[in-house]
Amino acid sequence: MVFYSKKYDVIVVGAGHAGCEAALASARMGCCVLLMAIDLDKIAAMPCSPSIGGMAKGQLVKEIDALGGEMAKITDKTAIQYRILNTRKGPAVHSSRTQNDKIRYHIAMKSVLERQPNLDIKQAMVEQLVIEDGKIAGVEDHTGFGYQAQTVILATGTFLSGLVHIGFKSIRAGRAGEFASYGLPAHLKDLGFQLGRMKTGTPPRLKRSSIDFSKFERQDSDQEPVPFSFFTEKITLPQMPSYLGHTNKTSQKIVRDNLERSALYGGMITGVSARYCPSFEDKVVKFSHRENHRVILQPEGLDTDEIYASGLGNSLPPEIQIQFVRSVKGLEEAEIMRPAYAIEYDYVNPIQLKPTLETKRISGLFMAGQINGTSGYEEAGAQGMWAGINAAGKVQERPRFILERYQAYMGVMTDDLVTRGTREPYRMFTSRAEYRLMLREDNADIRLMEKGHELGLIDDDTLKDMKERKKQIDSEITRIKGTVIKPQKAVNDYLESHGAKPLSHAVPLDQLLKRAEMDYHVVETLAPGPDSVHKKIIRQVETEIKYEGYIQRQLREIEKFKNLERMKIPENFDFNTVHGLSNELREKLSEIRPASLGQASRIDGITPSAISVLMIGIKGLGD
Amino acid sequence: MVFYSKKYDVIVVGAGHAGCEAALASARMGCCVLLMAIDLDKIAAMPCSPSIGGMAKGQLVKEIDALGGEMAKITDKTAIQYRILNTRKGPAVHSSRTQNDKIRYHIAMKSVLERQPNLDIKQAMVEQLVIEDGKIAGVEDHTGFGYQAQTVILATGTFLSGLVHIGFKSIRAGRAGEFASYGLPAHLKDLGFQLGRMKTGTPPRLKRSSIDFSKFERQDSDQEPVPFSFFTEKITLPQMPSYLGHTNKTSQKIVRDNLERSALYGGMITGVSARYCPSFEDKVVKFSHRENHRVILQPEGLDTDEIYASGLGNSLPPEIQIQFVRSVKGLEEAEIMRPAYAIEYDYVNPIQLKPTLETKRISGLFMAGQINGTSGYEEAGAQGMWAGINAAGKVQERPRFILERYQAYMGVMTDDLVTRGTREPYRMFTSRAEYRLMLREDNADIRLMEKGHELGLIDDDTLKDMKERKKQIDSEITRIKGTVIKPQKAVNDYLESHGAKPLSHAVPLDQLLKRAEMDYHVVETLAPGPDSVHKKIIRQVETEIKYEGYIQRQLREIEKFKNLERMKIPENFDFNTVHGLSNELREKLSEIRPASLGQASRIDGITPSAISVLMIGIKGLGD
Ligand SMILES: Cc1cc2nc3c(=O)[nH]c(=O)nc-3n(C[C@H](O)[C@H](O)[C@H](O)COP(=O)(O)OP(=O)(O)OC[C@H]3O[C@@H](n4cnc5c(N)ncnc54)[C@H](O)[C@@H]3O)c2cc1C
Ligand SMILES: Cc1cc2nc3c(=O)[nH]c(=O)nc-3n(C[C@H](O)[C@H](O)[C@H](O)COP(=O)(O)OP(=O)(O)OC[C@H]3O[C@@H](n4cnc5c(N)ncnc54)[C@H](O)[C@@H]3O)c2cc1C
Repeated sequence: MVFYSKKYDVIVVGAGHAGCEAALASARMGCCVLLMAIDLDKIAAMPCSPSIGGMAKGQLVKEIDALGGEMAKITDKTAIQYRILNTRKGPAVHSSRTQNDKIRYHIAMKSVLERQPNLDIKQAMVEQLVIEDGKIAGVEDHTGFGYQAQTVILATGTFLSGLVHIGFKSIRAGRAGEFASYGLPAHLKDLGFQLGRMKTGTPPRLKRSSIDFSKFERQDSDQEPVPFSFFTEKITLPQMPSYLGHTNKTSQKIVRDNLERSALYGGMITGVSARYCPSFEDKVVKFSHRENHRVILQPEGLDTDEIYASGLGNSLPPEIQIQFVRSVKGLEEAEIMRPAYAIEYDYVNPIQLKPTLETKRISGLFMAGQINGTSGYEEAGAQGMWAGINAAGKVQERPRFILERYQAYMGVMTDDLVTRGTREPYRMFTSRAEYRLMLREDNADIRLMEKGHELGLIDDDTLKDMKERKKQIDSEITRIKGTVIKPQKAVNDYLESHGAKPLSHAVPLDQLLKRAEMDYHVVETLAPGPDSVHKKIIRQVETEIKYEGYIQRQLREIEKFKNLERMKIPENFDFNTVHGLSNELREKLSEIRPASLGQASRIDGITPSAISVLMIGIKGLGD
Repeated sequence: MVFYSKKYDVIVVGAGHAGCEAALASARMGCCVLLMAIDLDKIAAMPCSPSIGGMAKGQLVKEIDALGGEMAKITDKTAIQYRILNTRKGPAVHSSRTQNDKIRYHIAMKSVLERQPNLDIKQAMVEQLVIEDGKIAGVEDHTGFGYQAQTVILATGTFLSGLVHIGFKSIRAGRAGEFASYGLPAHLKDLGFQLGRMKTGTPPRLKRSSIDFSKFERQDSDQEPVPFSFFTEKITLPQMPSYLGHTNKTSQKIVRDNLERSALYGGMITGVSARYCPSFEDKVVKFSHRENHRVILQPEGLDTDEIYASGLGNSLPPEIQIQFVRSVKGLEEAEIMRPAYAIEYDYVNPIQLKPTLETKRISGLFMAGQINGTSGYEEAGAQGMWAGINAAGKVQERPRFILERYQAYMGVMTDDLVTRGTREPYRMFTSRAEYRLMLREDNADIRLMEKGHELGLIDDDTLKDMKERKKQIDSEITRIKGTVIKPQKAVNDYLESHGAKPLSHAVPLDQLLKRAEMDYHVVETLAPGPDSVHKKIIRQVETEIKYEGYIQRQLREIEKFKNLERMKIPENFDFNTVHGLSNELREKLSEIRPASLGQASRIDGITPSAISVLMIGIKGLGD
């Protein structure tokens, strides 16, 4: 093989949401990086919903942002609708979500990549890895040309052995209209990796002028859209509504009557689908009692009239797709511009990865994104960032970069993946995070910017600003706690007019703020601070005080967690030497190779008593 | 096969430059149209140079515009550089050329298509035609779903049996990154069409920051850019320069030394390449005496940093491509983002078409664009318009739409194609037009808008404006011819100061304007019109007067041409009944089936005496 003369520190294979963050992170950390993709016109493409964020996913995006990643910035540059979800629920589950202009998203990300120093971008299909002495040494493309690097990150998404299904027609494709990669997965198998098969799908795109929107309920952008990124000053694009409607009995019937003609139920598909994101066939089968399901019509962009029909995903043949779509009120005349389809692809069970997302099998080879069995742009972006930082760190001989489960959703996700692996597409949920009151969107900067700064991904001024905000929050909390409110008439009038019980004796102001019916307004009215408190920190002050009790409890739990986490298991520890473990658990532990007792405790089937035994085994080492 | 319930008047297969114009023209004429493409994200893609227009091609674009087509309008919306070529030569060869932002071009065209009433757009791969009683009845897509229509236009570009070559690596693709169509060409063969094989290619795309532009000569947009379209009021995008450089001895040597490793000279390619647009391998072989060749670096758009390296097209393996590119001064450190490649594809020799671009073999089936053996966006757009109008005309039972060779470049091109066919990629040249002084860019509106209006593609106001301009031109010409200039001092001073011979006796003003060193300025100075003459018509007045002699001569030639053209040959005329024709000519005539004696006269090998014999044969019919 002929090699390119230049030697890279990091090669990233794949320019989806994972690959883009990975390449940017390592280039910004000072590595010489090569980013490769099959089609540069599809960089950061959104093959499914035109939206970023949402429950738990919004948190991931804020975390990427706080570490110095790009997703939130691009989102703000290209968003045409902003909504904060769950504002009536607790702050742990407040999540931002945007609708985005897809092609603008692609253009903006490509532009950032192209202007990033230390970063080359090349259109090529990677067929093989180059391995020397069990270590990664580079990649070989489809023309037989080689590129050398100290580390390689595979971020190949749904492309490995990709197979698109529409009814009984199957086409080898990485996504509709894009070439799949068949050489690379075969090669990965040869190298001894275990590959599994998953399935996802996407709804049809409809033609705007063929839809009767009067039959739908309009959903507008928030009145005062809040930018996603800590760095965004202003939202620039015009905002567009989406539209809510419903399927009905007829829709159910059409799909049920034709179930065996769908790829999914007709036996075409072996890959495992996500339970939480069912196609319409799945809904009909698994929720047969429910007559109607939501349909949300979302514009794919400002310039295009293609409409994404969320909720109508299926793998039926075209003639049934049309009938089914047209059964929805308001879609009687709908024209399908792109049919719905399902796609199957190979993934690498992430149990084969270390917590850094480096493969256990081949030193210097990392994997990030959908290849690890996840689904979703945000999950991919977060893993890309993580792998990019760790690959660069490996080259630069820095300590490995790990965020713990109490520090970030990113930490929860990677720990879940590498500790338990996944058999079905993994997506982020707030319920996966034990300490979610600590892992809020609004404090992502405070949680992570310092780490971003240490890595060289966040600049000094940004860090200073964050520290200033943090100081303001702390001092405002202290001030509120130190302010005593007396049962004066004005005070009690205010309380009564806000439906709250009047005071009978003096109380500290934080006690008032803790009441369910009160918010920061009470502070501003009864005891305004010396300077007017900056809008950005109000929510955090409020949360820290209102949820103080819960937060304290979570902090105590985190301490316990840390104790187990602190007990490291040496990399080459021999689990067979531990007495009192079943053979099954010994095998499992040897395969997963947890890095700490904490990680070991989260492995499926590991009991508290097994942990005690293991603790003794490890302590014995220290003797 | 299951058919879609809707019945279309016209189905256009392919949304390249041909397909887009075809679909718009027929939808605007009131037909119910379906436009299909393999990937809607590549609608109106520019797979090669990011530029529109140029010699003879500019004329085609203006003609499309004057007929009510879209290319010139989209060009203006997305142009980042304007240049009028050959301004120092005669007006027949003045040609406009722009550099365009590729992705904006795609977005703008897609947007226009989506908002066009009567037009559906669907992503699907067509595999078969549906034929009933020898007439077209629709198409069948890759999922086996059918769409019915009275007429079908194939505008499938380079996709039929497309094969991309980089060195000895060949990939089935319609363009880099896009699926080729293999089912349809096989089906066309089964239907009895003769398919040939052609080859084209594209240079590498380079990374802006890796180029030393100081080694190149900067080429800016014209000072006062003139819009392409008659409808454009204002140019909105910022203008960007391109850069001129040269290859050298080393470049020649690298390619020559590795010639047998290129797809082209290594025996991988059987398709016929264009002589006029050689790849670098061809330049080395065919112009071996020339040491340096031009390289023009052109931005691919405003947001992207990809640079199109015109002049460096090749089909060498990557390692040689890099060496070769880096041999150019200023490109020593260049990074290739997308490699150069060659592509081979099937085409349908257009001799199998009628002058309307309808196939002779299957009624209602039309072909337009690169499938007909042409090359170039403009050639494709013009044929698309032509086929779209004729397909709609067929549905609406209108007379066929034909422009003669003296009316438009479009007429020259289609006549060339259907009369002589083509064995190598056909592109437009001014030299192909006999009456090119009549077929100028500046009079395309006067030549064609009335026809566009008759078709319903040009609105009343536009026509009125054009007629107004025409009237102004005529009256200004009349005024100039009627104005006598006396040999006064002021006059002679003016003439002498402009390097012209002074007058010795009074002359009509048009005589002065006819002088080589004079332009319209002389009219403005010596005898300004009653109102200041509108800027837009100055060039036309000038041309009509300055080239009056030539124009008169061409008009006389056109009269002769028309005489032959007027002598129609009946559709079912039996050439075997004509005495005095060789068997070879009889066969040729029977195959091509010229529609008139004029067309017959342009068939290769037809002699004047054969035409005489033929004339007698046809006249005999009338008896
Ligand atoms: C049809 C469809 C439906 C989906 N539906 C949902 C959904 O409902 N909900 C949800 O959360 N997520 C969904 N997703 C998943 C979501 O789109 C992905 O999770 C996300 O885009 C994955 O990002 P990634 O960076 O891992 O990979 P991708 O975005 O898939 O990018 C992969 C990149 O790798 C490149 N590549 C692949 N192989 C090679 C190779 N051999 N050599 C060079 N480059 C290579 C590709 O060119 C591409 O640039 C869907 C995806 C698809 C395709
Ligand atoms: C690599 C390359 C280099 C080129 N270099 C030059 C050059 O140097 N100079 C020059 O003048 N021209 C060049 N061209 C040619 C120029 O790009 C084309 O002439 C022009 O784009 C042709 O337009 P078209 O509309 O005929 O087809 P295209 O632009 O090729 O569009 C074809 C359309 O048909 C669709 N399609 C194809 N098959 C099917 C099917 N079975 N079902 C549904 N849809 C289908 C495709 O999806 C696409 O939308 C080059 C082209 C390529 C690919």
